[in-house]
Amino acid sequence: MKIDINSDLGEGFGRWKMGDDEGLMKLVSSANIACGFHGGDAVIMTRMVELAKQRNVAIGAHCGLPDLMGFGRVAMKIDPRDMQKHALYQLGALYAIAKVADYKVTHAGTHGVMGNMAAENHEYIELILDAFKKFDKDLIYAAAPSAHGFKYARKIGLRTVGKVFADRAYDDEGRLVNRKLPGAVITDLDAVKRNMTQFLHDGTVTSQSGKTVKVDAKTVLIHSDTPGAVEIATAVRDAVIAGGGQVVPFTELVN
Amino acid sequence: MKIDINSDLGEGFGRWKMGDDEGLMKLVSSANIACGFHGGDAVIMTRMVELAKQRNVAIGAHCGLPDLMGFGRVAMKIDPRDMQKHALYQLGALYAIAKVADYKVTHAGTHGVMGNMAAENHEYIELILDAFKKFDKDLIYAAAPSAHGFKYARKIGLRTVGKVFADRAYDDEGRLVNRKLPGAVITDLDAVKRNMTQFLHDGTVTSQSGKTVKVDAKTVLIHSDTPGAVEIATAVRDAVIAGGGQVVPFTELVN
Amino acid sequence: MKIDINSDLGEGFGRWKMGDDEGLMKLVSSANIACGFHGGDAVIMTRMVELAKQRNVAIGAHCGLPDLMGFGRVAMKIDPRDMQKHALYQLGALYAIAKVADYKVTHAGTHGVMGNMAAENHEYIELILDAFKKFDKDLIYAAAPSAHGFKYARKIGLRTVGKVFADRAYDDEGRLVNRKLPGAVITDLDAVKRNMTQFLHDGTVTSQSGKTVKVDAKTVLIHSDTPGAVEIATAVRDAVIAGGGQVVPFTELVN
Amino acid sequence: MKIDINSDLGEGFGRWKMGDDEGLMKLVSSANIACGFHGGDAVIMTRMVELAKQRNVAIGAHCGLPDLMGFGRVAMKIDPRDMQKHALYQLGALYAIAKVADYKVTHAGTHGVMGNMAAENHEYIELILDAFKKFDKDLIYAAAPSAHGFKYARKIGLRTVGKVFADRAYDDEGRLVNRKLPGAVITDLDAVKRNMTQFLHDGTVTSQSGKTVKVDAKTVLIHSDTPGAVEIATAVRDAVIAGGGQVVPFTELVN
Repeated sequence: MKIDINSDLGEGFGRWKMGDDEGLMKLVSSANIACGFHGGDAVIMTRMVELAKQRNVAIGAHCGLPDLMGFGRVAMKIDPRDMQKHALYQLGALYAIAKVADYKVTHAGTHGVMGNMAAENHEYIELILDAFKKFDKDLIYAAAPSAHGFKYARKIGLRTVGKVFADRAYDDEGRLVNRKLPGAVITDLDAVKRNMTQFLHDGTVTSQSGKTVKVDAKTVLIHSDTPGAVEIATAVRDAVIAGGGQVVPFTELVN
Repeated sequence: MKIDINSDLGEGFGRWKMGDDEGLMKLVSSANIACGFHGGDAVIMTRMVELAKQRNVAIGAHCGLPDLMGFGRVAMKIDPRDMQKHALYQLGALYAIAKVADYKVTHAGTHGVMGNMAAENHEYIELILDAFKKFDKDLIYAAAPSAHGFKYARKIGLRTVGKVFADRAYDDEGRLVNRKLPGAVITDLDAVKRNMTQFLHDGTVTSQSGKTVKVDAKTVLIHSDTPGAVEIATAVRDAVIAGGGQVVPFTELVN
Repeated sequence: MKIDINSDLGEGFGRWKMGDDEGLMKLVSSANIACGFHGGDAVIMTRMVELAKQRNVAIGAHCGLPDLMGFGRVAMKIDPRDMQKHALYQLGALYAIAKVADYKVTHAGTHGVMGNMAAENHEYIELILDAFKKFDKDLIYAAAPSAHGFKYARKIGLRTVGKVFADRAYDDEGRLVNRKLPGAVITDLDAVKRNMTQFLHDGTVTSQSGKTVKVDAKTVLIHSDTPGAVEIATAVRDAVIAGGGQVVPFTELVN
Repeated sequence: MKIDINSDLGEGFGRWKMGDDEGLMKLVSSANIACGFHGGDAVIMTRMVELAKQRNVAIGAHCGLPDLMGFGRVAMKIDPRDMQKHALYQLGALYAIAKVADYKVTHAGTHGVMGNMAAENHEYIELILDAFKKFDKDLIYAAAPSAHGFKYARKIGLRTVGKVFADRAYDDEGRLVNRKLPGAVITDLDAVKRNMTQFLHDGTVTSQSGKTVKVDAKTVLIHSDTPGAVEIATAVRDAVIAGGGQVVPFTELVN
């Protein structure tokens, strides 16, 4: 079994830190790097690219809303065509930093509330994916297989990787339980480990109602700002290796 | 005689406008596009790229300090290694927008007070030019031939174009008179036209003290936020054509 | 007849301008001053306060969303309790600038899409008005009499002034037609003048469907970024004076 | 002996944290609250004001440069008259938040590199102190007694409190050693404790060269972003109490 461990990194800004970038970079095989809109700046982006390169971690542009104060977690009625341009801008910024560091951006995606905005209005994600595709047809898009964006990416010919969320509850249809509902975010480290061990064993998760649900995923997302993120990543990594599996970057797992 | 007319465009931000981008885009042959730091954002950058493409205007990244409020005109003691990363970030952002619009960034440079900062501390411009070169060895760098950056760009093998400033006074050594000194910025439209006619005629300008000075330039810079920018650009264009010359982009003039 | 002419001023930022602040300041009797969130900064705020003081124009804090790029015109699902704090912050900033200039903030309100956000979720405007009241119980709140905020302000004991919009269409209930609907914004200068002459004559406007509707207003709002804003303000002012009326600040018109 | 313990708090922004605000608020008697320019925002400012009020901690406006990315630690050649307005803006914002929380701003000062900028160009601090004085003549200004601002504040009649820095080295004239020089920032917790015990004992510090130097201070500044800030503050507090002294806010110590 080959699996990717994936995390959002480089979400600091200026002198502010967010998450244990250095700790997680040693555990993940793919990193989504903040690109200066919801977090991140050129300095931390460069450091992330260099660290990723040293450890052969695949990197992607993690494109957020133009809202530093809201950390990309506050929904905005921004014009989808404007958001497309902002996403492309961010991807290009990371592309250049990676290129000069002799490394390569191999995936791209969206951050925070963009997921919810895209679920309500498909235009948000479709236009962004169109731009990703036009910029680099070989980019990988990783997302929950149930998300519209995942299906659209496949439709337009982008390579995809299904994502399972280590610290989120699932419903009976294999979709993420809305963050606003009770129990949506799993903070109990043991529960997270149990869930991920189950997923690594047979590709299923247990939904909130107790049903066993198949999740067609090859990457496990660890939110870097979840308390215990390093422990969760370590547990997932250990479970993969204990099960005779291998932690490999996205780039070896695309379908 | 072939000459380029060059201007800083797309310096608006959000709903704010700065300069007559549409008017100037019809007159210039090369445009330096603001990249979201001192001005500009992904939306106006896209519009500029599309307009430039329609008119075959060469485009470049006009990289500024990370200071929207100061419009990149307030000197900062920012770490030169940080500024290098910010410049590269901006160049990449424009690169991606241009690529998706099926167009190409062919030059890059710095905005506003970065020129003065670079004159005082060569590291600012050297590190930036190193990054430009590493990103794309074919990029063109346009600057006053007397500037350190111009010489450094040639030294590291970047292509260069000498720049003459339509609305600035010169000293006897062919250097720009410091903006803080009286008469440094020429606001009299007739004086600007006279100077540019002379330059187009024999490649010289008359210094503040009355001396005739050679300026080894092939591009005339029009500041888009100078009052009468469109009139100045028109006058320069007319003078080139009246003299039997041709207005062509940077890309045909590199040395 | 006494009437106030009111406009949103000081919406520039750094080197960017928005609207003819100087021209309008000569025509209005009350000014809503941007406070650094959707537009404005401490420098332009100071200039506006000084100009207003010279001409005895009443000043108010024009509180916007924390979104410079969107100019406060992009709806955000910001927590209403956070927005309350942001509005208070802005009011305090203007208060201090006015105090040091020996002038006084006599009203406060919200900018742009905050109106629509408040119509959908009353908490936005109620919490803001609560903070305004707590900060200064004598503040005036000017708004469309049909708006929830207007009624709530009266309920909690803030002084109010009804607002009529010179460049907006009305429906049969005397409410503003949504900006997204055709004809909502009136750009024909003659139509604006005709409407305002009618309003000044008998306190009515003609709705889009042709019905005569009473608007209980004592201040006419001119959007400073509407093309022809100075002409509209001049026309309204002339009409008041021609009708034997008087243009006076809010502070003399509260009910 | 009565002494104040003072720290810069509320320097987070949006979702980013900086320093242990809650921990330090229990130990200090006066807090300098970031006001949204170098750090801080209306939400965290409100929380700081409420915490301070609960514990009777005196609060002041900690005014920074308009540079979030640089955290107010990057020198800028901003016009001193503009900086005056920015400082006043920040003070007003905190004033309003405190007023609505039924609390009071009793001091004000500047953050980060503004100290160095003011040392090089007195206009920076003089204009700011003029504005503080005009806004509220009873405000307290706390600074190193050797600083120009300290003397100017006394000259214009502001109340002052001398400040000693727990984690900084001193020269033989009782001035802070420049941060760029080796040993300027003391990171060894034992050394900090030893220095503060000496200061609390006889009002002196030992300079880098070993000389005993008098520091006329009544407040001990703890930088909240120094590693071990909570431990340092605890040690200082313990030392005061062990010596039979009392930790009291600025407001009881002015001269």
